[in-house]
Order: sequence, then structure tokens, then C-alpha cells
Amino acid sequence: MKSDPFFHPVSGFDLPRFAGVPTFMRLPHVGLDDARLTQVDVGLIGTPWDSGTTNRPGPRHGPRQLRDASTMIRAENGATGVRPFEMVHCADLGDVPPNPADLQDSMTRITDFYRRVIRAGVIPLTAGGDHLCSLPILRAVAEEDGPVGMIHFDSHTDLFHSYFGGTMYTHGTPFRRAVEEELLDPKKVVQIGIRGTTYDREDRDFADSVGIRIIPIEEFHARGPEDVMAEAREIVGAAPTYVSYDIDFVDPAFAPGTGTPEIGGPNSWQALLVARLLKGVNIVGADLVEVSPPFDNSGGTAYLGVSIMFEILCNVAGMLAERHG
Amino acid sequence: MKSDPFFHPVSGFDLPRFAGVPTFMRLPHVGLDDARLTQVDVGLIGTPWDSGTTNRPGPRHGPRQLRDASTMIRAENGATGVRPFEMVHCADLGDVPPNPADLQDSMTRITDFYRRVIRAGVIPLTAGGDHLCSLPILRAVAEEDGPVGMIHFDSHTDLFHSYFGGTMYTHGTPFRRAVEEELLDPKKVVQIGIRGTTYDREDRDFADSVGIRIIPIEEFHARGPEDVMAEAREIVGAAPTYVSYDIDFVDPAFAPGTGTPEIGGPNSWQALLVARLLKGVNIVGADLVEVSPPFDNSGGTAYLGVSIMFEILCNVAGMLAERHG
Amino acid sequence: MKSDPFFHPVSGFDLPRFAGVPTFMRLPHVGLDDARLTQVDVGLIGTPWDSGTTNRPGPRHGPRQLRDASTMIRAENGATGVRPFEMVHCADLGDVPPNPADLQDSMTRITDFYRRVIRAGVIPLTAGGDHLCSLPILRAVAEEDGPVGMIHFDSHTDLFHSYFGGTMYTHGTPFRRAVEEELLDPKKVVQIGIRGTTYDREDRDFADSVGIRIIPIEEFHARGPEDVMAEAREIVGAAPTYVSYDIDFVDPAFAPGTGTPEIGGPNSWQALLVARLLKGVNIVGADLVEVSPPFDNSGGTAYLGVSIMFEILCNVAGMLAERHG
Amino acid sequence: MKSDPFFHPVSGFDLPRFAGVPTFMRLPHVGLDDARLTQVDVGLIGTPWDSGTTNRPGPRHGPRQLRDASTMIRAENGATGVRPFEMVHCADLGDVPPNPADLQDSMTRITDFYRRVIRAGVIPLTAGGDHLCSLPILRAVAEEDGPVGMIHFDSHTDLFHSYFGGTMYTHGTPFRRAVEEELLDPKKVVQIGIRGTTYDREDRDFADSVGIRIIPIEEFHARGPEDVMAEAREIVGAAPTYVSYDIDFVDPAFAPGTGTPEIGGPNSWQALLVARLLKGVNIVGADLVEVSPPFDNSGGTAYLGVSIMFEILCNVAGMLAERHG
Amino acid sequence: MKSDPFFHPVSGFDLPRFAGVPTFMRLPHVGLDDARLTQVDVGLIGTPWDSGTTNRPGPRHGPRQLRDASTMIRAENGATGVRPFEMVHCADLGDVPPNPADLQDSMTRITDFYRRVIRAGVIPLTAGGDHLCSLPILRAVAEEDGPVGMIHFDSHTDLFHSYFGGTMYTHGTPFRRAVEEELLDPKKVVQIGIRGTTYDREDRDFADSVGIRIIPIEEFHARGPEDVMAEAREIVGAAPTYVSYDIDFVDPAFAPGTGTPEIGGPNSWQALLVARLLKGVNIVGADLVEVSPPFDNSGGTAYLGVSIMFEILCNVAGMLAERHG
Amino acid sequence: MKSDPFFHPVSGFDLPRFAGVPTFMRLPHVGLDDARLTQVDVGLIGTPWDSGTTNRPGPRHGPRQLRDASTMIRAENGATGVRPFEMVHCADLGDVPPNPADLQDSMTRITDFYRRVIRAGVIPLTAGGDHLCSLPILRAVAEEDGPVGMIHFDSHTDLFHSYFGGTMYTHGTPFRRAVEEELLDPKKVVQIGIRGTTYDREDRDFADSVGIRIIPIEEFHARGPEDVMAEAREIVGAAPTYVSYDIDFVDPAFAPGTGTPEIGGPNSWQALLVARLLKGVNIVGADLVEVSPPFDNSGGTAYLGVSIMFEILCNVAGMLAERHG
Repeated sequence: MKSDPFFHPVSGFDLPRFAGVPTFMRLPHVGLDDARLTQVDVGLIGTPWDSGTTNRPGPRHGPRQLRDASTMIRAENGATGVRPFEMVHCADLGDVPPNPADLQDSMTRITDFYRRVIRAGVIPLTAGGDHLCSLPILRAVAEEDGPVGMIHFDSHTDLFHSYFGGTMYTHGTPFRRAVEEELLDPKKVVQIGIRGTTYDREDRDFADSVGIRIIPIEEFHARGPEDVMAEAREIVGAAPTYVSYDIDFVDPAFAPGTGTPEIGGPNSWQALLVARLLKGVNIVGADLVEVSPPFDNSGGTAYLGVSIMFEILCNVAGMLAERHG
Repeated sequence: MKSDPFFHPVSGFDLPRFAGVPTFMRLPHVGLDDARLTQVDVGLIGTPWDSGTTNRPGPRHGPRQLRDASTMIRAENGATGVRPFEMVHCADLGDVPPNPADLQDSMTRITDFYRRVIRAGVIPLTAGGDHLCSLPILRAVAEEDGPVGMIHFDSHTDLFHSYFGGTMYTHGTPFRRAVEEELLDPKKVVQIGIRGTTYDREDRDFADSVGIRIIPIEEFHARGPEDVMAEAREIVGAAPTYVSYDIDFVDPAFAPGTGTPEIGGPNSWQALLVARLLKGVNIVGADLVEVSPPFDNSGGTAYLGVSIMFEILCNVAGMLAERHG
Repeated sequence: MKSDPFFHPVSGFDLPRFAGVPTFMRLPHVGLDDARLTQVDVGLIGTPWDSGTTNRPGPRHGPRQLRDASTMIRAENGATGVRPFEMVHCADLGDVPPNPADLQDSMTRITDFYRRVIRAGVIPLTAGGDHLCSLPILRAVAEEDGPVGMIHFDSHTDLFHSYFGGTMYTHGTPFRRAVEEELLDPKKVVQIGIRGTTYDREDRDFADSVGIRIIPIEEFHARGPEDVMAEAREIVGAAPTYVSYDIDFVDPAFAPGTGTPEIGGPNSWQALLVARLLKGVNIVGADLVEVSPPFDNSGGTAYLGVSIMFEILCNVAGMLAERHG
Repeated sequence: MKSDPFFHPVSGFDLPRFAGVPTFMRLPHVGLDDARLTQVDVGLIGTPWDSGTTNRPGPRHGPRQLRDASTMIRAENGATGVRPFEMVHCADLGDVPPNPADLQDSMTRITDFYRRVIRAGVIPLTAGGDHLCSLPILRAVAEEDGPVGMIHFDSHTDLFHSYFGGTMYTHGTPFRRAVEEELLDPKKVVQIGIRGTTYDREDRDFADSVGIRIIPIEEFHARGPEDVMAEAREIVGAAPTYVSYDIDFVDPAFAPGTGTPEIGGPNSWQALLVARLLKGVNIVGADLVEVSPPFDNSGGTAYLGVSIMFEILCNVAGMLAERHG
Repeated sequence: MKSDPFFHPVSGFDLPRFAGVPTFMRLPHVGLDDARLTQVDVGLIGTPWDSGTTNRPGPRHGPRQLRDASTMIRAENGATGVRPFEMVHCADLGDVPPNPADLQDSMTRITDFYRRVIRAGVIPLTAGGDHLCSLPILRAVAEEDGPVGMIHFDSHTDLFHSYFGGTMYTHGTPFRRAVEEELLDPKKVVQIGIRGTTYDREDRDFADSVGIRIIPIEEFHARGPEDVMAEAREIVGAAPTYVSYDIDFVDPAFAPGTGTPEIGGPNSWQALLVARLLKGVNIVGADLVEVSPPFDNSGGTAYLGVSIMFEILCNVAGMLAERHG
Repeated sequence: MKSDPFFHPVSGFDLPRFAGVPTFMRLPHVGLDDARLTQVDVGLIGTPWDSGTTNRPGPRHGPRQLRDASTMIRAENGATGVRPFEMVHCADLGDVPPNPADLQDSMTRITDFYRRVIRAGVIPLTAGGDHLCSLPILRAVAEEDGPVGMIHFDSHTDLFHSYFGGTMYTHGTPFRRAVEEELLDPKKVVQIGIRGTTYDREDRDFADSVGIRIIPIEEFHARGPEDVMAEAREIVGAAPTYVSYDIDFVDPAFAPGTGTPEIGGPNSWQALLVARLLKGVNIVGADLVEVSPPFDNSGGTAYLGVSIMFEILCNVAGMLAERHG
């Protein structure tokens, strides 16, 4: 149990939740040049970037809205009793500075930023950004951990070869690239919630060819979250695992603020539950992506997003607390 | 398998989905005077009309918003693998020109339009419009097929005798009229999802008296979509059947953009599933009605609506492909 | 069966639902000084007050939006066939005049108002207001009935000792005060749907210490509404019971218009069903609180709210009709 | 000076403005069968009807939103010092019950309602409703006063012969009909603010042929409100005059909640000022029409609308107070 | 006067404005491969692209929303009496297909598209898209006409050298590039409405150094539209001139749907008037850019935008009609 | 000229404006316990509190939305060329922690906070909060400077004696209290923009009795901003002066996000201009209050608000730079 009060979030009893400069979960802001960085166990990071979107844009505004919504997160997980901020040191590491008009430059900036974070021993928990941001993050993660496993919640596989006549980097291609670049071990990758209309089966054929396990939404609804997550945990086993959570995994009635929604997804209870059921996974990094504030300026989607991030954080904290003894 | 490329929708890889003049599902626009009309198997038609609404208006704007949302529909049904646009010729036949200030004139215009469509051998798939539009469509359908069966998804029966002291034509009366005019065979009519507060039992007494089967929402939730749809398919059997889908069948959290929502309906997964479970029904026409854009200008309701239309279309395409051998 | 037409709501066939001065459920407005008051069985009352909110304000606007939405409520409960307005005399008793800038003065005004209502033999059905309004109402209720039981639907316990360094009266403390003031019999109190992140366990420890039964959302989802409500009815037994329904019990996708939403709640069907399953409870008063129009100006949350109020009203009417023979 | 406290609006000091059942300007509700009717000098009436709209619907919801917004109107006109509610008896007479599905029936109902009002000696101040409602109102007005003059604020002339191939009754034709039916004396009619694109000059040619004076927006901006209104007052002189104020007279940035907005109109200050400058006109009735809540559910357009209604009311009150001595 | 009815827009009397597949101003859709292309005088084109935005994205959705709003444009300019569609042949040429994930590829695609349009003798009237789209359009325009003059309405100069440490192509740099590439003759360029906070004076120093005339908003408000536009017309004289109209020229109360609004701009009347006062300018192309639908899904900004486009179109039509004699 | 880079805001060229933890104008966050506090010249402070609102609540959320919008403010005032952040040290001092459920406690907390700020030699520039927050701020200001002058922009005088039967502290009474407590010198107080309906003349009679100058909106529109502000500057002369700017001074089309809007106010250009014309005033503190995000979640009102704050800040910076030589 760690309890440096510097890393405790501001309580809603001391400062009402609507007050104050909004950092992630009201945690201290610790920049990459801050000496405190090496004391951080879990770093919450924003990647305000959406150059990979092929349909509706907006996730560049995601981190700010997620920070805003996150001030409603309190100290304890009501369901599990976990109090992560007292177990490990958490901090808001700020945002990666993207270049909105240069896709490749932005990817380089993201990898550079995460490399520093990971080398400092910090587990990154990312608030996206569109799903392409997972690729430069995985480049940094894999430098440390080699090809990693992945549990991926989404309505899309993001495994396409290319778009628009040969464009290799969009939010529909990051995991194709990640497999090709050997950042992911496809045998330890599971994708949950896939649905909607599709161009063709090129993505799923690729998945089959490399051993990625796809659990479509039909199967998810038939088996239920517990059973599906048991299989997911088995697929990744004890391997270092990245968790990538696209908010469009959730049905658009619960998460309208996203660019490419698909009808017929899980409800909010299931959305939380699958994150809670990551317990036991060896998480080396995680992201929550594709929250697009212009399509939900009520903040409801963002609040769902940070609630999911908190569930993931609780699992990371539990894992580290156990590891640290 | 038919594959005249003229009838293929524009791919999102060639032209991003947000681009271009929006036709239904990015299909070619084929007007009634176009020589191509006779090559069309399934015609998507808008009925931008809401003079039958007794509460909140707006469905006159439905077809445009549904067209807009429909540009997100891709080539293949992810769940079933059906690729309808390669199986049959689909086209956007445009909108019926209504007369917003003359209810009877509008009904005549609708029947005239659909008569031409049906005589050209085209199966009409309609985007409403309020639910009264089903009546003039059924008049055209029944000219060809005689009294037809109907599978009707709705929270209301739309079987009332009259409103406001004797007004016979509103969106609460179309199927009462359709039974009286012998457009529907009531023994082959099933209404699914009925709920909410009611004036009295006059509509349900009529249903009972003519043999219409009503499956209220309590029964739907208790039995589940598969069981309910098995009964529905049995009721209509092999008879020519019209499918009428009022978007207020779905719970208003998933479909807020409608004029007379009722609490406690199916979720979006169930909303899709019941349409998918129409497989095997002899569909001679279908509509998706009561999408009211002023009450959901996010377009979420419309996207749900066109996703349902696509499921229906896949079933119609499968039926025709099988029939055509 | 009572049928003084004075107490019948205006029919949507006589005056469309969007027309007319909006009273609750289109009932007659009967002020506290009106001679008709003693003829009223169930009084619908607004408490437009939100000085107890600690996060997002707005419930002061709740009664008006609930009245507006309530004009869509028709004469008969479609599921149960109950026609409450023909069984008992219902009326809109208007709003308590709060003092928005003086919390204690407002509480006094509320208790005074309800004392008059209850002494006139009227069962109050309240449209809040934030949850603190339940406290001054319970003060009036307990004057008549002594410590009462309570079935409480909420995502929060509202059992905290104090906020902001000693502030005793907020919407997070009313039932702590009510137990301390012996307005509630804690052994006959059940709280259903509790979830979300929490400050600490101080509220739940208090509940345990006095015998309040908490059914967290995990248990609710596992057991289902019928089983949970059977237990709830057993807890309160035949005792005079207050029903307090915080709209944030329901998942925010269905009820976004509230100040402190929590992810993962019941859907709208379950939200209605639990109210319907209050049948048999000896209800001496009920409230529906925390509808905050500024956070849902579509009115969808309010329509859910009044639909719940109608279910409660049907049970109260059934109870009184049976009692009156 | 009349001061029966029955007719005084509820003060915001006694009951906050957001509280209470919303009547127009918090005035007492006096139905047509109420004995108090004959004591009323000015009656505020809603015409919740929009069957005449040819573009976006919604004004059927206008009266309710206008009532809601009107609870912010206080006792005194800050600019002129007029306190109308102490000068004459004002009341909310409720809404005309329209038939949303039968245009002619609705017109008959409106004329019948206003005939009763006018025969009771009440000057009607109407909250629309689309602009077609002015026609049945004028039918009742002209029964009493013969052909009347009219000062008409609008971006459209509403003088077209017919729509959609011969439809005579839409919100684009009421004043053509009113001239033909000799309800208006065209020589005493002035239309102010006309602008936007047009089909053709058929309406303006008619105006020229019968002597209606049109002041297009170019002229309005060039001359200013004072000069234009001086001419308007001169045109109607001492004749009994109807005031018809279409909210789309005002620029859509100030009044977005309407169905057929036109760019480049007056600002809100000018919108109030022209109503204030009606002082001295012999007003026999007035309306504020085309507020369409679905297109502005913030209520801002409605608040502008009732602020204009209050300015008109102040002038009517001043006129009557002077007349009554 | 040309009057091939093929090029006439659909009348709102034949088909209500809310009905039908929405093309720009209800004109026929003529693709670049269509034989009719050479008959077109003015082509309305969408550039659904926003990769140049440095702040809020969204203009990729502009063309569709502008098409939707444009169906409210009627045949005749009410202020000037111009009926452009009867004077010249206008058509909707569709959208340029952008590559949302490749900025340079998109610029090439745009130039290629416009080259074909211009070589066919069509004057392009563009609906953006962010302001960077003006650069590839000007590349095509200047191929034909050499360095052109420009009248530019905007709150920003868009003359910066680079962003984000050397990025040369953003919506803040197009006209810097256009001067460098000799697409514009800076001595014949005037920028009107410049305002807001700024990074530094680098852009304005550049303007001074090459002879671009900047009229800041202070000067605009002091002199008024007529005087400013007289100067603008004098600056460009008879030279071939491009008109570039950024919707953020207009105050954000009138045009909220844009990415980088600046406070204190012209009102809607002035916004129309400056476009009308382009009369006499030798327009070789024009654009209306930066309408961002996600930030105004009411469509109000788009309606303002198409109203401005119509004013420009009327001037182009007048110019061509005069030229063609 | 001061130029400690610590106090420079983050440039949009280094980090896009949508990125990063949002502090006011992207300035460093300097808490009251921070040693840097004494180096600060101007402190931007949030007072997230709205317990004084008598109508629509929400200003408690103002500071956060104002911070968010303020990240669009760049380094230089485009109109005046002032670069305040290079002239004086500016910082975000965070928010006062209010007690939302205890009005008097909150006022004490605010005064305590500002006392520390002012004693540190910092000029406070406040982002409200409702208008009652000006009272506890003035208590701290007057401790240092004695009774001060005030230039007050508003549509209401906020000079009422009491509300709701004797409640002395609401957002309608702060300046009545401030005069009574001798925090303000009424002879040096001017109120600009007063308009709307009123309860009575009690506030204006008080103003007259103590010598407060009220410039109603009629006079403002007639004389124009320059003339009015010349008088205002003359009234306060060289005296220490507080500037209080209620956003409802501005017309609601430009500033809809506020609780008690009044029709017919200044436009956004005038709103900026009056702040710019404070040049030369001896400003000892300023606030911008009554921004209520729930009533404008587009952020447009907040962007107007921070643009006004920036104009005030430029004047304060100019004054201090001149003073410091």
C-alpha cells in the first residue's frame, strides 16, 4: 500500500467535483520532465489526435472531455472495493503534442512520448484520440516487451490492409500494421464485439491467417460477458498484454459520441463488466479511444469512457500491488 | 447472382462516406420515368409526409435524414454474410411528392406512385413518413396481391376507429382502414411490441374481433425475439406479406427521434434481430416509418432505422435470389 | 369506483396532447385553499428546488418538465389494465414555493405544505426537486404515520453523514437525517440499485449498523427485478411505506437528465417494472426526484419519469380502491 | 386603473419563476365557460396548430413553449414604465382545440373560439401556431369590426394564390384569402421586413394590385425602425387594426426556432422596438406566430416571442386605459 | 437568357423543399463524365475535406449539410430580382473525392478535379471543406487565368508561413503558398474582416511586404459594407478574380458551425450584403468554406452559407448573361 | 516589459489549442501556497458557485467551461496590438472551493481566498459564478482599497433589497449590500445596459437615492459605446475601480448560456468594445459572471466571455506596465 498524499486525487468533499483545473481523475499533473515521473506507477495520458479517422472526425477533442468527465470519479470502486489511488501512484502525464496536419510526424511524436514514459517504468493508460494512436503506442510498448498479446474491444477489427487506394495508416488499419511490424503476437490477440456492415472479408481473412480470434457480437450476446472474458483471459494467458478499448464497442445509445458507431452493441453494464473482468491479465498498457466530443457534447460518452478507464486502472493497480507485495 | 455495376453502391474506399450526393445506401437514383426502372428488383422510396401525426410532427423530414445516415451502410451484412447489392438490383427511386396541406391528395399521390412501382415489378422498401403512409402504400400493394399478411413492429396498434370526434385518417388508424378496405387479411396480421398507456381497449377489441394477433411488450420480453418471430413467421406463412416497422417499436433511448415514444421497448440488438428473423417471409413490400429528425438531429435514430432497413433488404434479396435461382 | 368527471384528465381525443395548460397528467389543478382538496385521494405535487445538489444543479426545473411530459400519459395502464383516474380522485396540487437562496427556509416551506396535504387525507406523489426534498416530506409524513418503511431506488445511498466539512443537509444525506430523526424505521428500509465509485464506506457502514438493506446493482442484475422486488415487499411488509425513486437509479442512456449519473444501471423496461412490482405495498407517499431538465432538454428523461410516476400511481389507486371497497 | 388582484400575475418573489403551472405571463386561467370571461380585457390564447406549414413543422408546440418562457415576464415594462396588469384585466384563456388531421375543421374551430372571445368584449392576443391561424382569427375579428387594417411583420408576404397545384390554404396564403374575403382592407395593410429568395413576383404583384404596402428589408435597414413605424402608423391611421407578427421577421440568429427562416433580418432590439412603436394604433387583435419549438428547444426564440407579446400587450393596455379613462 | 429546363431547379410547389435527393439548390447532378458538362456555365462543387484544420475539425461534412440547406433556395433573389437559373446553366457537379488520411494526395485530387471543370469552361462555385482547399483550387484556376486577384472574407488572414514547427500546409497558410506559387497577384488581393487574437504579426508583415490590403474588422465596422466593398472592387478592378468566403468572417452568433470562430464579426445582413456588392467583379471562381456541421447541427450556419453562395451565384450569372449578351 | 517565460502561455504552434490540461489562457497554474504567487501581477480565478441564482442555475460550471474556451486565446490583441503576457505576469490561481449547500460559508471562503490574493499584490480577474460572488470579492477588495468605484455591465441592476420575503443574499442584491457595507462608493458607480421587465422601481429608486448612475439600454443604443464609455470613465475618474461584467449584458443571441437573459442587448462587437474602452481606468479587480454552461454547452457564450476577459486583461496589463514603467 503506497500512500504518498501527493498522488491522491482531490476529494469532492474538499473541492466540489465541478471545481478546479480538470486533470484526469483529479490526479496531480506530472510532466515528462518532472522529477516525480519515476515515482509514478500508472500514467494517464491524452493523445488528442484524429488524423486517422475515415468517417466523422473529433477524437482530437477526446482527452479534454474525458478529463472533464473524470472529475466525477471517486476514490473507491463501489463494486470491488478497490481503492487504486492508495495502492499505486497515479498521475496525469499530460497530452502528447500532435501535429494535426502531418500524420507521420504525429505518429513519431507519440512513439517518442511513450518511449519516455515506459522507460521511466510507468504503465501508460491512454485517453484517445482515434484508434490509429494505438499503433505508435504499441511501437513504444513492444520496444520494452517484444510482441505483446492484446484484448481488443471494438465493433471493427481495424485489421484492413489499406484505404482509399493504398493509404496504409488510418484508424481502420492499426492492428494490421502492428502484426506486420511484430508488435503484436497474433496468436495472443482477441477481438470482441465485432459487428456492423462490412466492405468485404479481407480483414477477417487476415485474422484467420495469422491466428487472431474474433468474437463477433452475436457470439458475445449468446455467451455473455463472463464466458467471453474467460476465453479472452485464457488466450492472452500470462503474456504481457495490451488492452485496447474502442468506445464504439458499446452500443451507440450509450456511447453516441464516436465517429463510426454500429448498431446492436453491449449495454453500459456489460461495457463496465468486461473491463472489470480483465482482472488477472498482465496489462502493460491500455487505451480508451474514439470518444468524439462533437458528437456528444453532453459528456455522457466521456463519462462512460472514464468509468471504463477506472475499471482498467483498478485492475492494473491490483496487479501492481500484488506484484509489489 | 446479378452484377450490373450500375446498381452497385459507391464504395467508401472510392469516395469517403461523408462525401457525395446522398442517395439511399449510395445506390443509383432511378426515377419512375427512367428506362432502368424495369431492371430494378428492390426500390428504396421516401414518403416525406406527416399529416397523419396526432402528437409531435416531423417525419416529413425522415427520408432525407435516413438517406444521409444510409451512406454508412457497407456492402455486406457482417452477421449473415449476405451481400444484397450483388444479388439483386437495388435503386433509390426518389421521394413521393406529397401535398403537406392536403391529406387526401397526398394519399392519392402515394398510391399512384406505388402503383407504378409495383406494376414495374419492383418491391418497394419505404422510408417514411408517419405511419399513415402505410395505408396508401397498402392500397397499391393489394391491387397486385390481394389482401396481404402483415408483420408489424410498433408500440401502438394503429387500429383505432377515429380521432378528434370522427377523423378517420391519422397515424393511429391506418390498419383499421386497411382491414376495412380488405387490403390486409387480419388472420395473417401480427403486431409486436405493443405497450404504453392507452385511451381504452377499443383498438384491441377490434383486433380480437377480426383475428389480429397482438404480442404485447411484456410477452416479447418474456419470450425473447427468436420465439416471438417464429410465431410471427408461422402466422403469415407463405402468404404475400407486408412488413411495417415503426421506429417507436424500439425503446426511446435507442430511437429518440420519433413523435410518440413509449417507455420500455426492445434494445437496438433486438431491434435488428427481429428484422433479421424475417428470413423466409414472402415479403411484398416493407416500410420503416416515424423517424422524426427534429427530435433527434444527431442522426442516431436514422442510423438505427437504415440498419433495420438493410436487414429487411438482405432478406428480400435472399428471397429473390432464391426465387430467381 | 369513483367517477366525478371533475377529476378526469382531459382526453387526447378532445384536446391534442400538445395543447392546453400543462398540469400533471392533464388533471385539474386544485390548490391547497381549494374546497375540493378534501375530495382528493392522490395529490401530484412539484417541489421545484435543488439547493441540496452537490454536483450539477437543475432539478428546480424538474416539475415543469415533468408536467409537460405528463400530458402524454393516457387513461389506462396498457400492461395491467388499471385506469387510476376512474378509481380514485387525482389532482395537481401545484408546486411548493421554495426559497432558492435559503435551504432551511425551503425545507420548512416543504414540510408545511405537505403537512396540509396529508392532514387533508391526500396521499402525496411528488415530482422533485433534488433528493434532499424527501427529508422535509418525510417529516410531514412521519407526523401522521410515525417512522415509516421505505423502498428506495437509486444509484446512491444518500446516507452520508455530511459534506464539505460538516454540512449536514445535501442531497447525499437526507436518509441519514431521516433515520436520526426517526422518520424512517431503518429495519424496513431497502435501497436498490446502488453503484458507482464512492468516497468511502461510511454510508454503507451506517446502513449496516442500523439494519438498512442495500441491494447493489450487481445483485440486481444477477437476480432480476422480480426477485429483488419480492424481497423489497417482504422487507416493508404491511407497514406504512414511502417510495423514493431517484431517476439516477436508471442507466444514464435512458435518463441522461440528472445531476449525478452512474454508469451500468437498469434499462427503461426494468425501471418501469420495479415500480409496477410495488403492487401490494402500503404506500403513504412517493417521490420521483433528480430529473434535471438542463441536462436533457429533449424531455426524454422526464417522460421516463412520469411513466414511472404513473406506475406508482396505478398501485396507489389500486390500493385505495381495494381499501375503499 | 383596474386592480382586481384576481387578475394579477404571480410574483417571482412569491413563487420563483421556474415554479408553478405555467400560464401565459403567470396570469389566471379563465376558460370560455368561466363567468370571469366578461371581466377580461385582454385574453391570451394559444392556437397550437401547424397544418398550414409547407416546410418545417412544429408551431403546434408553440403555445406551450411560449407559456413556459412567459413566466419570466415581470410586472413592469422597464423601458416605458407601463404596468399592464394593473391597467387592464388580462387572463390566459387557454388553447383552441385544433384537429391536427383536418385543416378545415381546425379553421372552423378557431373561428368559433375567437367569435366567443370577441363577443365577450375581449381583445385576443394570440400565441401561434403557424401563420395560417391568422385567417380564421381574422374571420372572427372582421365579423365584429368589418374589414380591418393590418400591420404585419414578416419575412414573407403570405400573399400567394395557392401551393402544390391549387391548394388554397397554407401558411403562405392567409392574407390573400383575407383580402379576397374582405376581412382586411388592403389599403390599410403594411408588410414589413419582406426578404429572402422567392418563387416569383406573383405575391407582390397582387399586393400592388390591391394597394398593400410592402416594406422590404433593404428599406427597413436603410430607414430604421422609427421611420418605418411612423409610416406604418400612418397607413392604418385610426382604423381598427390587426397586428400579425411572424417570428421569422427577426433574423434567425435571434429566432432560430421557426420553420422558414430567412437570412438578414432585424436584430432583437429592433424586434422589440417595432412592437413598442405600435403605440397609438387601434389594435383589435394581435398574434405572434410561427415559433417552432422543435427547432429551438433552448426556449430562446420563445422568450423573444413573449417579450414581443408583452410589448404589444403594453400598448393594448395603454390604449384601453386611455379609452376607459 | 438561357432556359433549357434540364438546368432548372425543382420548384417547391412541385416537390416540397424537404423532399427529394438533395443536390445543391435542387439543380441537376452532372458528373464530370457527363456529356452535359460542357453545357454548364456555373458548377457547384463540394470539397468534403478538412485535413488542414488546426483546431476543431468538421468541414468534411460541410458539403452535405450545405446541399441539405440549399433546398430552401428559391428561383429569384428577392432583393435584386435576379433569376440566375434562367440566365445561365447551373448544375451540381458532385464532390471531389478526398483522401482523409493523406493531405498531399487530397490536394492533387482537388486540383485534378477542378482542372477538368475549368477546361470544360465551367466557373466553379465551391462548398468547402476547410480553407486549405482554396489552394489546390487556385492551382487549377491559375493554370487558366494566370495569377488572379482575390476578394477574401475572413476573420483570419490565412497567410502564415507554417505551423507546428514547419508544417507548410494547413488552413492557416493557403494564401501564403498561393502568393509564393504565383497563383495570386498580391497587389490585387484584399482581405476583409480580420480580427481576433493573434500569435504575432508575421502574417500581416508578409501582407504588407507583398502589397496585400487587409481591412480589419474595426475598419469594417467604422466604414460600413458599401464603402469597404467599393474599395475592394477597385483593388481587383477588371482582373480575373477569385472570391474566397470563410464563414468565420461572420460573427459566431450567426455562424456558430465553424472551427475557429472569432468574436465581434459582421451580422447576417452585412454577410449577405458584401456578397451582393461583388456585382461587377470579374469572378473566375468562388468558394464558401469552413462550415463545420458538428458544431451546428441545426443547419443554421449552412443556411447562411448557401444564402451567401446564392448571392455570389447571382453576380456570376449576371456577369455571364451580360457577357453572353 | 517582463518576460519570465514561466508566465508565458503555451503556444498553439507548440501544442494545438485543443490539447493539454486547460488552464485559463494556457497560463501556468499557481496555487495560493505556491512561492510564485508574489511574482504574479494578474491572477485569473474561478468562483464555481451559483447559490445566489433565483432563476436558472448553472454558473457553478462556468469556470471550467471558461477555461476550456480560453485555450483559444492567443498572445496578442489583434485590434490594439497589446501582448499582455509579455507585459505582466499572469497566472491561473485555481478555483475558490465553494460549499454548494451553504451560502454564507461560501461567501466567507471567497472573501478569505481573495484576501490572500490581494495581500500578495495580485489583481484578481474572476471567472464566475453567479453575480452574488462579486459581493464577497468586493469585501476583500475594499479591505485594501476602501470603498471603490465600479463600472458594471449588466441587464439588471442587482440592487434589490431582498427576495422571497426577506432573503438578503441573492444574485439580485449584491450591490445593494455592497453599498450598505461601504464597499462601493455609489457616486462612482455606473451601471450600463439595464433593460427587461421589472418587478418595480425599488432598485432604481435606491440607485437614485445614493447617486448610482444607470444607463439603460435605450440610452446605450442611442448614444453608442464610445460615448457611453467616455461618461463611464469620467464617473470613476482615477479612483480605484472594480469592473463587473455580467454576460447577460450581451444579447442572448450572442450569449445564450446564462440564467436570466433579457432581450435587446448589445451585440458581440459592442460587448468587446466596451471592455476595450476601459482603457485608462484604475482597475483593482474585475469579474465576468453568470456564464451558465448547461444553457450553452456549445461553449460559444464562454468564448465570448473569455474574449471579454482578455480585453479587460489587456487594459490591466497596460495600466500596470505603464505604472511599473
